[in-house]
Amino acid sequence: MGYRAEVLAIGTELLLGQILDTNSAWMGQQLALRGIEHVYQGKVGDNHERIVRALRDALDRADAVICCGGLGPTQDDITRAAIAEVMGVPLVRHPELADVIRGMFEARGRTMPESNLLQADVPEGASVIEQRIGTAPGLICPVGDKVVYAVPGVPYEMQEMLERAVLADLSLRAGVTGVILSRVLRTWGESESGLAERLQGRIDALDASGNPTIAFLASGIEGIKVRITAKGDTATEAQELLDAEAAAVRAVLGRIVFSSDDETMEAVVGGLLLARGQTLAVAESLTGGMVASRLVAVPGASEWFRGGVVSYASEVKHEVLGVPEGPVVSEAAAIAMADGVRRLLGADVGLATTGVAGPTEMEGQPPGTVWLGLAVGEERSAVHVRLPGDRDRVRQMACISLLDRLRLTLQGP
Amino acid sequence: MGYRAEVLAIGTELLLGQILDTNSAWMGQQLALRGIEHVYQGKVGDNHERIVRALRDALDRADAVICCGGLGPTQDDITRAAIAEVMGVPLVRHPELADVIRGMFEARGRTMPESNLLQADVPEGASVIEQRIGTAPGLICPVGDKVVYAVPGVPYEMQEMLERAVLADLSLRAGVTGVILSRVLRTWGESESGLAERLQGRIDALDASGNPTIAFLASGIEGIKVRITAKGDTATEAQELLDAEAAAVRAVLGRIVFSSDDETMEAVVGGLLLARGQTLAVAESLTGGMVASRLVAVPGASEWFRGGVVSYASEVKHEVLGVPEGPVVSEAAAIAMADGVRRLLGADVGLATTGVAGPTEMEGQPPGTVWLGLAVGEERSAVHVRLPGDRDRVRQMACISLLDRLRLTLQGP
Repeated sequence: MGYRAEVLAIGTELLLGQILDTNSAWMGQQLALRGIEHVYQGKVGDNHERIVRALRDALDRADAVICCGGLGPTQDDITRAAIAEVMGVPLVRHPELADVIRGMFEARGRTMPESNLLQADVPEGASVIEQRIGTAPGLICPVGDKVVYAVPGVPYEMQEMLERAVLADLSLRAGVTGVILSRVLRTWGESESGLAERLQGRIDALDASGNPTIAFLASGIEGIKVRITAKGDTATEAQELLDAEAAAVRAVLGRIVFSSDDETMEAVVGGLLLARGQTLAVAESLTGGMVASRLVAVPGASEWFRGGVVSYASEVKHEVLGVPEGPVVSEAAAIAMADGVRRLLGADVGLATTGVAGPTEMEGQPPGTVWLGLAVGEERSAVHVRLPGDRDRVRQMACISLLDRLRLTLQGP
Repeated sequence: MGYRAEVLAIGTELLLGQILDTNSAWMGQQLALRGIEHVYQGKVGDNHERIVRALRDALDRADAVICCGGLGPTQDDITRAAIAEVMGVPLVRHPELADVIRGMFEARGRTMPESNLLQADVPEGASVIEQRIGTAPGLICPVGDKVVYAVPGVPYEMQEMLERAVLADLSLRAGVTGVILSRVLRTWGESESGLAERLQGRIDALDASGNPTIAFLASGIEGIKVRITAKGDTATEAQELLDAEAAAVRAVLGRIVFSSDDETMEAVVGGLLLARGQTLAVAESLTGGMVASRLVAVPGASEWFRGGVVSYASEVKHEVLGVPEGPVVSEAAAIAMADGVRRLLGADVGLATTGVAGPTEMEGQPPGTVWLGLAVGEERSAVHVRLPGDRDRVRQMACISLLDRLRLTLQGP
């Protein structure tokens, strides 16, 4: 059995679901990327005995434990004391840490509450990870030949400390040489089971070696993701395996792959528009500004995005966008909206959504009935889609479906 | 020591952080609401030995374990087999469950893959929780005088099964009589530490009894939440404690409390508009449709929301909204946008955002510089705010700040 790490998230608010534990997921990603095996994560409340027990259980299963949270200045923040008990040592106040904390308050023109001095307490024999953002230092605490790390629960403080100090120390202890790399191919236009069927040949071929692996993940407005993960003795070896498998998957899936890794559909569409020197405007009914808001989030969107009209009321469709009188959940309305908004906003390309988000029907059409309009050059058309799910899901699916239509049109046959 | 439950989330994709474990947080909320003590949550990958070990560890600490995930039809879905091993019994195929699964496929006009029959396998001696949404049934598995529940990992399948079957069974076993209730007061207009300072008197008063408790939670576009949690022997007792404390907190915080529990700022604003019989239109620059999209998400928004214009390009501000030539990150532009959009869309009230989301400055203004415009009746004004954080955070803060301005205006002095 190789070297193993565990993550222990500490905080009653996490256990009670008052806030979502995103830290453990992030740490899981980082450990995987660095090839450090970790097979278990735990979550425990702000209770001394239970934290001590959870730490002991974790150290029984693993060689290293990363504790996250409970390093603040209040009486709920008892991670330091729990680790000291597990180490069998007292907490010792470090005057130089107290000075650093006092200095951080002074730099902000504030007086340090006395309670913040608790953050200068360190289990005897532990090393300190200097605090750079928040006032809580991190800790590296030897327990026999194993180790417990303590980092703050504030996500950006935790991330900075992990990247700066914890992961390097951990890799060294773990003697990690292997490298795990992964890549996500993002798709739209096929269901999760449809993707699995198409890729059955690849999955069978990989099952023998177990490396790389392929997994699917439906991600709402982000599309359906195909994740390829490869393991190698070196980064080069892992990269080569990954590249080869990604090429094989792309060859099978073709145009339904719209991007890889963190590139969103709206970034892809923005890139295509920029390359053609064209600008975009969007008319939205059921999506109500969601498409525009996603487009604006793309860095540099001002180069190709003019803006949009949220024509939620039917009168706005007729009066502002020039949609002819008649049903608004229709092919004709979607086309008129796309054409109207590009004219009004002086854009080269117009897009439009009109449909029934639900929960109730509209113009006799059931929820999920959506028309996606497109006006590019001389082409003016609309396609009809039936989208599953609740109101929010229908709106999200309408967004990505609309942008994918534009992507396919701009990419050409 | 009372009756205790634990949650065990199963799935390598959770451990590796490829998807966020929202199920455990939801289950934590439900257990707390029902007064079932739970002090630990775990997360383990799709590996038989590790799931077995995690289940045994959990049963060692707790009386009941709710396992979530790993009930699908693929070779990764091994929760059934792991539980059977912990129970020391074989898996037995239930022909009637197989019929139900086959029937679900047929109802959708599809043929059932043979692999789905795995979902009809049940540890000997376990009871089945009928599947109503997905194809996987849930399980209630006795282990000595303790119990393991297994539910699917798909959030709405899991939630439906927990609410229908698991929580009632668990309350019965736990002999729960105490009730925990909580309420969230949502605020805007004061920082987290500012809220804590204002409420120091209440917090000190409660510290003696420890019941109710008060906690703070900054929630981006949802505002800063003040959560009050009260414990009673009966629902009535808990409710009375909660009501009294909520009234005390409201008395201290006054108008910065804009709603409670799940009511969003946009729903509050919608209610105020509906009561006055007025309609709203929004002109958005840096928020780019985010305000409109949030408004459209409110059920019944069509009663009071006309729509909006996303005037991302400066020309759109000038040409479509009639903003005079000159700087667009300005008081004059914000007022002209708010007034222009209500005129264009025929609404009673106009709102506008213009500013610098970042990362780079614009018109010599630093990121975070935002003007919020408002046009109601004869009043036309704009306020200037400086918002902290990155691009996404600035946009979110601009949304809620804008809507809060309208709320305070509509509520009157």
